[in-house]
Amino acid sequence: MFTQWRFVISRCHAVASVTACKNRFYSANAIRIRDAINSQKVGDQLKIQGWVRSIRSQKEVLFLHVNDGSCLQNLQVVADPSLHDRKLTFGSAVQISGALVKSLHKGQDVELHASDIRIIGSCDPLKFPFKIKERHPVEYTRQFPHLRCRTNTAASLLRVRSEATLAIHAFFKDNGFLQIHTPIITSNDCEGAGELFQVELAQKDKKQNDERSHFFSIPVFLTVSGQLHLEAIAGAFSQVYTFGPTFRAENSQSRRHLAEFYMVEAEMSFTEGLEDVMKVMQSLFKTVTDNVLSQCPEDVALFHKHVSPGHKWGSDLQSEHEKYLVQHCGNVPLFVTNYPYNLKPFYARDNEDHPNHTVAAVDLLVPGIGELCGGSLREDRLSLLQSRLEMAGLSDVYHWYLELRQFGSVPHGGFGMGFERYLQCILGVDNIKDTIPFPRFSYSCLL
Amino acid sequence: MFTQWRFVISRCHAVASVTACKNRFYSANAIRIRDAINSQKVGDQLKIQGWVRSIRSQKEVLFLHVNDGSCLQNLQVVADPSLHDRKLTFGSAVQISGALVKSLHKGQDVELHASDIRIIGSCDPLKFPFKIKERHPVEYTRQFPHLRCRTNTAASLLRVRSEATLAIHAFFKDNGFLQIHTPIITSNDCEGAGELFQVELAQKDKKQNDERSHFFSIPVFLTVSGQLHLEAIAGAFSQVYTFGPTFRAENSQSRRHLAEFYMVEAEMSFTEGLEDVMKVMQSLFKTVTDNVLSQCPEDVALFHKHVSPGHKWGSDLQSEHEKYLVQHCGNVPLFVTNYPYNLKPFYARDNEDHPNHTVAAVDLLVPGIGELCGGSLREDRLSLLQSRLEMAGLSDVYHWYLELRQFGSVPHGGFGMGFERYLQCILGVDNIKDTIPFPRFSYSCLL
Repeated sequence: MFTQWRFVISRCHAVASVTACKNRFYSANAIRIRDAINSQKVGDQLKIQGWVRSIRSQKEVLFLHVNDGSCLQNLQVVADPSLHDRKLTFGSAVQISGALVKSLHKGQDVELHASDIRIIGSCDPLKFPFKIKERHPVEYTRQFPHLRCRTNTAASLLRVRSEATLAIHAFFKDNGFLQIHTPIITSNDCEGAGELFQVELAQKDKKQNDERSHFFSIPVFLTVSGQLHLEAIAGAFSQVYTFGPTFRAENSQSRRHLAEFYMVEAEMSFTEGLEDVMKVMQSLFKTVTDNVLSQCPEDVALFHKHVSPGHKWGSDLQSEHEKYLVQHCGNVPLFVTNYPYNLKPFYARDNEDHPNHTVAAVDLLVPGIGELCGGSLREDRLSLLQSRLEMAGLSDVYHWYLELRQFGSVPHGGFGMGFERYLQCILGVDNIKDTIPFPRFSYSCLL
Repeated sequence: MFTQWRFVISRCHAVASVTACKNRFYSANAIRIRDAINSQKVGDQLKIQGWVRSIRSQKEVLFLHVNDGSCLQNLQVVADPSLHDRKLTFGSAVQISGALVKSLHKGQDVELHASDIRIIGSCDPLKFPFKIKERHPVEYTRQFPHLRCRTNTAASLLRVRSEATLAIHAFFKDNGFLQIHTPIITSNDCEGAGELFQVELAQKDKKQNDERSHFFSIPVFLTVSGQLHLEAIAGAFSQVYTFGPTFRAENSQSRRHLAEFYMVEAEMSFTEGLEDVMKVMQSLFKTVTDNVLSQCPEDVALFHKHVSPGHKWGSDLQSEHEKYLVQHCGNVPLFVTNYPYNLKPFYARDNEDHPNHTVAAVDLLVPGIGELCGGSLREDRLSLLQSRLEMAGLSDVYHWYLELRQFGSVPHGGFGMGFERYLQCILGVDNIKDTIPFPRFSYSCLL
């Protein structure tokens, strides 16, 4: 078996090396605009591919700005007016060959002097919903989730989002955390709180089956948190995390809520106190933000210049208490710790500090957003957890969760960070719907 | 705003640096077993934390094997029998301090001579479902998704899975692809094929609402593929990918199907032919596999030694045609290209090769698994796509998809790779249920 498998792999290697791609898969030997702009290859003949972002025809010369998504900046293309085709419009897809030369124009080091312009796909500017050189309001672009990535703001957001995602994985990898794909479909209702989406066979398929029976034999839901599943794995791996979609059926049009959003969740075993959880929260925020700032400076600057000035810290829909706390403390991120016992879910660790009676829970509040992270130590003591679950009538449902405290239980804790709220926070995006490519919220599921 | 945001970040930095964690968040200055084993710090005093995997008490000496999930190998702990506590059993959680010394025993370079053993959490070996030094059949361990990560095989799988996940992200990052979170909840039924899960408000929440109305105003489903959404983004970014959960309500107990599984999907603009798609497929497979082999050699070896010998290439549930093709070609991975027009979904690009009439689609078949990847060029020509959608009565539903061909359309293509099938393939895991931490399939949704 091992030999055979080796053979399989090496055959794949052989095949791959024969047809190995040059130039990172870019077809027709084209290079990406980011690489063209950053290259010091002035004088070289290049081919680029992308979409026309602006076009200006003068008597003696034709100017184009072309973008391929690899960076915010467009490549300026200078061409003889004879290359101007009536199909060469805003939004059209082009392939352009020419010489890269030092630019005399402000705001760019190089430009492409075109020898050939091929129109790959035309675009009728009258039908295209975005207009040349216009900055459309987010409420307008949001109506076109299939096209809004062609605007600067949405494109910058997607680049930052991708970079932040990778930075989150790198942070956990560097710190010895194992990534776990916690399930999306679950029979647990993690917090007892939060409104749930239920999953069933689609109607058309259901008719062929027994209408009364569930596909999974039991009612199942979309996950509201991977925490309990992570806790199970933390019982063998000490440090684990998950980063994936999470769901809340909240009937809210708030600028801070989505029905489908991404959450980073981490769980650490052998904790000594709530500080162990807070340390990881802080370090995650700091490391990922540093990374985004250094990898996407132009994209971040676009937000700070054009998007966030219209956004006031602590605007209307934020909970009043959170707003007060953050403002009271000087408009900086702050931790709120040790919440009243009855306000937090069953898994939060009892501080046994009667008569106040709190649990070891912590929220990280940030200006303008409110709760960014929520975490706690988890109740690791079997008897305390058991009596709390019994009181709630949940001992049967969480029998497996109790078992985790029966077999080599350890003090542990963790937290979750809303990824879209994080993006709102660092970029100053007012409405969470503009931080995710395809937002889902009540009454809206476009595409 | 910019200043204020800067301030926020720097305050976070300040806070983080004051409480900055040493030793990568490991509490109580403990170090991970992997680091202890690989360190050259013989003679150092260390503290480790983990779970007892075996215990052997002799007259003069007590031997423990302790594992914390950081690697397959246990750390051998040697102690005076006076440190033996009756609660020190298989499965219990411990914290042990001592001196790291060169080991005279076979199969390990170092061992820990314990000066202190603290039992953090006990474990009744009679109640614990796994028995010391026993290799349990996968059908048995599968019944305990909350505990099976404490077995060697499941733990190795999770380490390989985590590493392969990171390698996939690294591959795409290195090759200039942007990561996109395509939606889980969608109003599209991508392929018209595949049985769907529908998403509704949970029953208990529904009662408070209008029973007849949908949360999203329209019926919505769990995604079967992020392809169409990726295509939208590829219209601005040239190279994009997604890696996330995907769903099929297939009522199958097959060893190759899950109701919830992970899929890697990539989409490339400006393609010149199907080879552009095949190149990326091959390179992804090769790069990720190289990475897993070099990062997790012990974990991979465990599978090849103990798991895959019982697995025969091309066993029963594989489709007969795929099996024949792979065997016919010498049991190596192979591409099958240019499928009959009527067998593939509407988006596959017409080869216009009458009378055969095929589309530019490609599947990668691998021994023992069958289809690992499926891809195609996409129909980028408006008129051809329009008439095909009209014939299928889908023009209205896919109006947005047609618009992508109207505004700067480019030749493009992509593929999807089933991540669990990939793990089956490289590790020789017979049943796909053993490649994911919490498997979901018909009649089963544990936890």
